[in-house]
Amino acid sequence: DSSLKVFTLNSNRKLAEDIASHIGTTLGECTVKRFSDGEIQINIEESIRGCDVYVVQSTSSPVNEHLMELLIMIDALKRASARSINIVMPYYGYARQDRKARSREPITAKLIADLLETAGATRVITLDLHAPQIQGFFNIPIDHLQGVPILSDYFEAMNMKDIILVSPDHGGVTRARKMADRLKAPIGIIDKRRPRPNVAEVMNIVGNIEGKTAILIDDIIDTAGTISLAANALIENGAKEVYACCTHPVLSGPAIERINNSKIKELVITNTIPLTEDKQSDKITELSIAPLIGEAIIRVHELQSVSILFD
Amino acid sequence: DSSLKVFTLNSNRKLAEDIASHIGTTLGECTVKRFSDGEIQINIEESIRGCDVYVVQSTSSPVNEHLMELLIMIDALKRASARSINIVMPYYGYARQDRKARSREPITAKLIADLLETAGATRVITLDLHAPQIQGFFNIPIDHLQGVPILSDYFEAMNMKDIILVSPDHGGVTRARKMADRLKAPIGIIDKRRPRPNVAEVMNIVGNIEGKTAILIDDIIDTAGTISLAANALIENGAKEVYACCTHPVLSGPAIERINNSKIKELVITNTIPLTEDKQSDKITELSIAPLIGEAIIRVHELQSVSILFD
Ligand SMILES: Nc1ncnc2c1ncn2[C@@H]1O[C@H](COP(=O)(O)O)[C@@H](O)[C@H]1O
Ligand SMILES: Nc1ncnc2c1ncn2[C@@H]1O[C@H](COP(=O)(O)O)[C@@H](O)[C@H]1O
Repeated sequence: DSSLKVFTLNSNRKLAEDIASHIGTTLGECTVKRFSDGEIQINIEESIRGCDVYVVQSTSSPVNEHLMELLIMIDALKRASARSINIVMPYYGYARQDRKARSREPITAKLIADLLETAGATRVITLDLHAPQIQGFFNIPIDHLQGVPILSDYFEAMNMKDIILVSPDHGGVTRARKMADRLKAPIGIIDKRRPRPNVAEVMNIVGNIEGKTAILIDDIIDTAGTISLAANALIENGAKEVYACCTHPVLSGPAIERINNSKIKELVITNTIPLTEDKQSDKITELSIAPLIGEAIIRVHELQSVSILFD
Repeated sequence: DSSLKVFTLNSNRKLAEDIASHIGTTLGECTVKRFSDGEIQINIEESIRGCDVYVVQSTSSPVNEHLMELLIMIDALKRASARSINIVMPYYGYARQDRKARSREPITAKLIADLLETAGATRVITLDLHAPQIQGFFNIPIDHLQGVPILSDYFEAMNMKDIILVSPDHGGVTRARKMADRLKAPIGIIDKRRPRPNVAEVMNIVGNIEGKTAILIDDIIDTAGTISLAANALIENGAKEVYACCTHPVLSGPAIERINNSKIKELVITNTIPLTEDKQSDKITELSIAPLIGEAIIRVHELQSVSILFD
């Protein structure tokens, strides 16, 4: 179908190539460079007039650079008369700034939604938003895909016995429940609590983990502080072994060191954010979301519902 | 006047302090930091409910960081019930991407205008836009100040004889004419021309520079290629000495080296972009725009016309 074009910018070139080949096409030609003063220069090297364009770009680190590349690309596509401009954003940056927790805070996740629409995006395809409410920040259609099936298929193939899915905090219980349903396993929760102000947090484990293989699940692993402490608490409290998994491997700052030094046996992630050279670890297994996103693009392009991809 | 508040972010702290003290106030308290993954975190530390807020930020290098700081700050101010959000942007980045010179190019200067309005800006105060047409990219009031009076006052005080104002290209002739009027001097133009494709450009000087003190004027000096070549051509063709001046010292890449190695005797700039450590040169004189911007803010706040500041 010559009206479907896939482009990518600088965040996830390899993933975008895999998505394009899943669809049976190749990436559109475009160059994304910097002028001497650091301003972004984008040139689209082929006609896209009347086409349905899919732009693959995560707003991962360097988040502000990747976001501006995307906004400028959308502007260029709009002015070049694309029929539709579909943003494929495997990782949605700034998603944790999704509400005013204190006075005079920005809600940057909403700002990003507004900026994408203002630039000219007509649809967004994304994966595991930090809070599903972010879907409501958009006035254009948004397809919200999930990483749980990919992660649970991997663990299912390992054929482990006596497993328990553990959420590292209260906010992730629904996610743990979804994965537990697929793996037919019980769930547990790490219930962090500060007994008094200025006293160290206590990690209380809710659920029976004695002798079990625990699988910690989260949406984002950033500095890996929470997940490493959780893994160690599980082992100290009698778990046989601990796996961890997440959709979005942000892995900033001390993350890799913490994971390597923790009791985590294996960390399973997806490639919504590429594992750059400084983020390598023997403990990490990367699964590809290219088939999932590829399927979603095919369905969106054929005007079919994407929601069946969730089950 | 307690309803007027001036804030600044990370691009021009010193200038913002000088502007605030010109107005007779101090900068509002706010912290602008980065999370571990590079996302911007802004906290406004004092109430601004019902206030007229002025935010001083140039979108100078790192342009995408400075722009995102500004957009997130605007979002925070809007949600904290500011009465008006006035953006003081001494240097407007991406101003050179102001038209489609080729097919499928973005018009990023227009995108930036839309992003600022979408975030919630209610007015923009800026200086020497690369093209005055950019004013029309906004649907909110924009005050467009000029650096020419500040630059020409400096040269006037030097009491030089036999001067000629020279524009380094065709696009800058109007600017050279304005400064020449103030200094009661004639103008010249460097008329670059490529005789045939793939043959070096010829620098033809229009105007009589023999034995004169030439003052080159431009809006932006970026890599300083044009201005250095122009200065050398002027000396080779009989000018006695060459000064150069501009409003916006972008000075990226080889700029400082080129200026130091050129025939330019002195380069006069303003502080719309701060001279960071890597941009020091004995040839450079920096003039402050703080009084000009301070006056503009006072007038805007008193709902007076800002245009009298131009003469
Ligand atoms: N990029 C970031 N890195 C670390 N913390 C963040 C980031 N963005 C937002 N936050 C904080 O994370 C919290 C939201 O996380 P959660 O409670 O899991 O939704 C808020 O307190 C935010 O201030
Ligand atoms: N940041 C930048 N650095 C260098 N050149 C640029 C930059 N932004 C835009 N341009 C180019 O500068 C030209 C516009 O300059 P002008 O003709 O002086 O208005 C266009 O050809 C742009 O592609």
